[in-house]
Amino acid sequence: MSNEKYILKGTIIHTPTPSAFEIIEDGYLVCSNQTVEYLGESLPEKYQGERLIDYTGKLIIPGMADIHIHAPQYGFRGLGMELDPDSTWTTWFETYSLPEERRYADLEYADKAYDKLISDLLKTSTTRLCLFGTIHREATELLMKKLDAAGFAAFVGKLNMDRNSVEGLEETTEESLEETRQWLEETATLYDHVKPMITPRYIPSCTDACMEGLERLIREFRVPVQSHLSEALDEIEWVKSLKPEIDFYAQGYDMYHMLGDEVPSVMAHCVYPTDEEFALMTQRKNLWVAHCPQSNLHSTGFAAPIRRYLQAGVHVGLGSDMAGSNVLNMFRIIADTMLAGKVYWACKERGDDPYAKKTYITISEAFYLATKGGGSLWGNAGSFEEGFAFDAVVIDDTSLADFNKRTARQRIERVIQLADDRNIVAKYIGGKQVL
Amino acid sequence: MSNEKYILKGTIIHTPTPSAFEIIEDGYLVCSNQTVEYLGESLPEKYQGERLIDYTGKLIIPGMADIHIHAPQYGFRGLGMELDPDSTWTTWFETYSLPEERRYADLEYADKAYDKLISDLLKTSTTRLCLFGTIHREATELLMKKLDAAGFAAFVGKLNMDRNSVEGLEETTEESLEETRQWLEETATLYDHVKPMITPRYIPSCTDACMEGLERLIREFRVPVQSHLSEALDEIEWVKSLKPEIDFYAQGYDMYHMLGDEVPSVMAHCVYPTDEEFALMTQRKNLWVAHCPQSNLHSTGFAAPIRRYLQAGVHVGLGSDMAGSNVLNMFRIIADTMLAGKVYWACKERGDDPYAKKTYITISEAFYLATKGGGSLWGNAGSFEEGFAFDAVVIDDTSLADFNKRTARQRIERVIQLADDRNIVAKYIGGKQVL
Repeated sequence: MSNEKYILKGTIIHTPTPSAFEIIEDGYLVCSNQTVEYLGESLPEKYQGERLIDYTGKLIIPGMADIHIHAPQYGFRGLGMELDPDSTWTTWFETYSLPEERRYADLEYADKAYDKLISDLLKTSTTRLCLFGTIHREATELLMKKLDAAGFAAFVGKLNMDRNSVEGLEETTEESLEETRQWLEETATLYDHVKPMITPRYIPSCTDACMEGLERLIREFRVPVQSHLSEALDEIEWVKSLKPEIDFYAQGYDMYHMLGDEVPSVMAHCVYPTDEEFALMTQRKNLWVAHCPQSNLHSTGFAAPIRRYLQAGVHVGLGSDMAGSNVLNMFRIIADTMLAGKVYWACKERGDDPYAKKTYITISEAFYLATKGGGSLWGNAGSFEEGFAFDAVVIDDTSLADFNKRTARQRIERVIQLADDRNIVAKYIGGKQVL
Repeated sequence: MSNEKYILKGTIIHTPTPSAFEIIEDGYLVCSNQTVEYLGESLPEKYQGERLIDYTGKLIIPGMADIHIHAPQYGFRGLGMELDPDSTWTTWFETYSLPEERRYADLEYADKAYDKLISDLLKTSTTRLCLFGTIHREATELLMKKLDAAGFAAFVGKLNMDRNSVEGLEETTEESLEETRQWLEETATLYDHVKPMITPRYIPSCTDACMEGLERLIREFRVPVQSHLSEALDEIEWVKSLKPEIDFYAQGYDMYHMLGDEVPSVMAHCVYPTDEEFALMTQRKNLWVAHCPQSNLHSTGFAAPIRRYLQAGVHVGLGSDMAGSNVLNMFRIIADTMLAGKVYWACKERGDDPYAKKTYITISEAFYLATKGGGSLWGNAGSFEEGFAFDAVVIDDTSLADFNKRTARQRIERVIQLADDRNIVAKYIGGKQVL
């Protein structure tokens, strides 16, 4: 089926550029060889007779990329959004994340927990992901196997944590690097669309020796890398104390070629860049910021300077950061991107000027970030331009309707603000129907 | 049925005080004469033989009060969360709210639109409401009739707008007051639990003559009042220019005894109080702030100083402010109260101090605001203390479970962050089962 040529018919909406939605009412979208071959208002003669799946009345949008999600944290989502006022940001991490991740040493537990995650992910608009696993090689390999079986395109990380972890979730530097090597050898070419991604959890979790070893593995296997950067003010202070030789946090990755110079790098959060850090980020053309608006608002009450990153040409995609957020639903993350953009503006730029020029993130920009912005990590994905991976999501928005005739533009606005898994009726990833 | 004595069994959670949840696992809640007669871990001898409804395994919580909701705006929820950067806050209002409200001159339209709203409200945890209608007396009376028939307890307002409206949604001062008088005469004693509430939309919508006339009606009918206060910086500037004789916005209501001195008053938003305004608010013991966190974040990117109001003893309840927000779901509004509390802290109090003392709104405080905080407007409502109105919501949280045993405290945390109408299986208002 996956190499078959077929046609979807419906109201097609995507964002080839961030500045506006491109909308084709009652249009045709042709899949050939797992990619988009044609998009238009009418069906050319040459496609007559090909299989047509008629979604008239429904919306067809590109699949979305969740480029920062902690797979093992799905189970405890919704817990710990309130913590003791005297706690530091690490309290949540030590109370919820690490004890739960410890359980993934047990493959039986990993099996049922990852099954639940993937079954719920299938019902969402997400088609591509960058996932953090745990330090456990076997559980991470199991996660990759399940993602492949479900049809997702994904980069998956076995974590490295050779310091500052909790009892029962520890690895020595040697173990960490040895397991990572074995995992890379086993999975680098195992699947077509599910690939390993080097994942030092973040600087406080990895010794210099570990980072040096990972740098060697990156060069040897030419795999991309992901980590966390400048998420919280006290985290940044901690990094400075752990690595007094660096001037700013991002240098701690850049010195090991993990900031998007040699291989693609996804850095989650990037909420508090200094001017120096920001300047370096703009020079790294293989760097993607994974903007996690709901998580940032929950954990810090503040938001990343996304408008600045976009203006400087830094790649930006969106992440749920499950379970720093509570939802897999990328529509909600798009809506939260707009909302976080307003918080950034109100708290950083407006001051007391009631008529200050607004620099919000627009709805088409936020949609772009969730689709083509994050999708660009895979090359051509997240848009219906010719040659792009055929990732499509079909939406029945009947339940969101009111008693007014709404345009397609208004319908996608409402989908972004209101839709959940009940509205998703079909999903295609790389040409293959997975839902 | 409504005067019958009966017993609910289940895991019962409420907040008699904001500081903590009170949790009774496998407890008993007795309804008698529409109020709570008993709550406890075991069932006293005298209730043996009374009808028992067994919700073992489910959570039973107090009904919630949505004390600021625009009933006619439900239809267009989700639209206009992004507007032109050059627009002022009134643009949204003039693009979406006013044109939609105009349609409620047509009773046939009002009939189907209000049916849809009430049918969806029934599925939520909301049991009590303060609603804004439109300027139309007949549509407002229809809304009241439908709310009564569905079993809700509600205050409902026919709006007054004798200036600064749009074509087709206008009334003269005389019409405004005359229609309001007729409406009060017709509905003041018509229903047991659905009552009229004087509703000048806000100062820019009402001339001095209108406000004076409303003041006379309030004194004559002894009805409560609701309006908007200090929602946006440019709105505040506008009020100042319209009423140069006042020193701050709240005075514009207080001079007409609409700020909670003689009758209860609900003021929505209260995001930007000056020190003088704040001081006056603390003196008005019949004043409730309707905190609308999602709406405030959407419209201003900022949040009201709820911690300050609570410390000063000002009553605070929660509002969806539909369609300034997109949801009727008060669980989401509770979660957004916590989130907005973090935004306020991060942007106003923390500054650059990474270890600054946190003054977030806790989860039990936010839950209290949604239940007893807003419920206190009706006297004893929103809690399971003896003598309180029997408003109860039964929740099946099976779909939110993971593979760990969770405490009742953890279950309510997850419900607040994750639950929607799919999790609500029964609802009681004033002793009557409505769902």
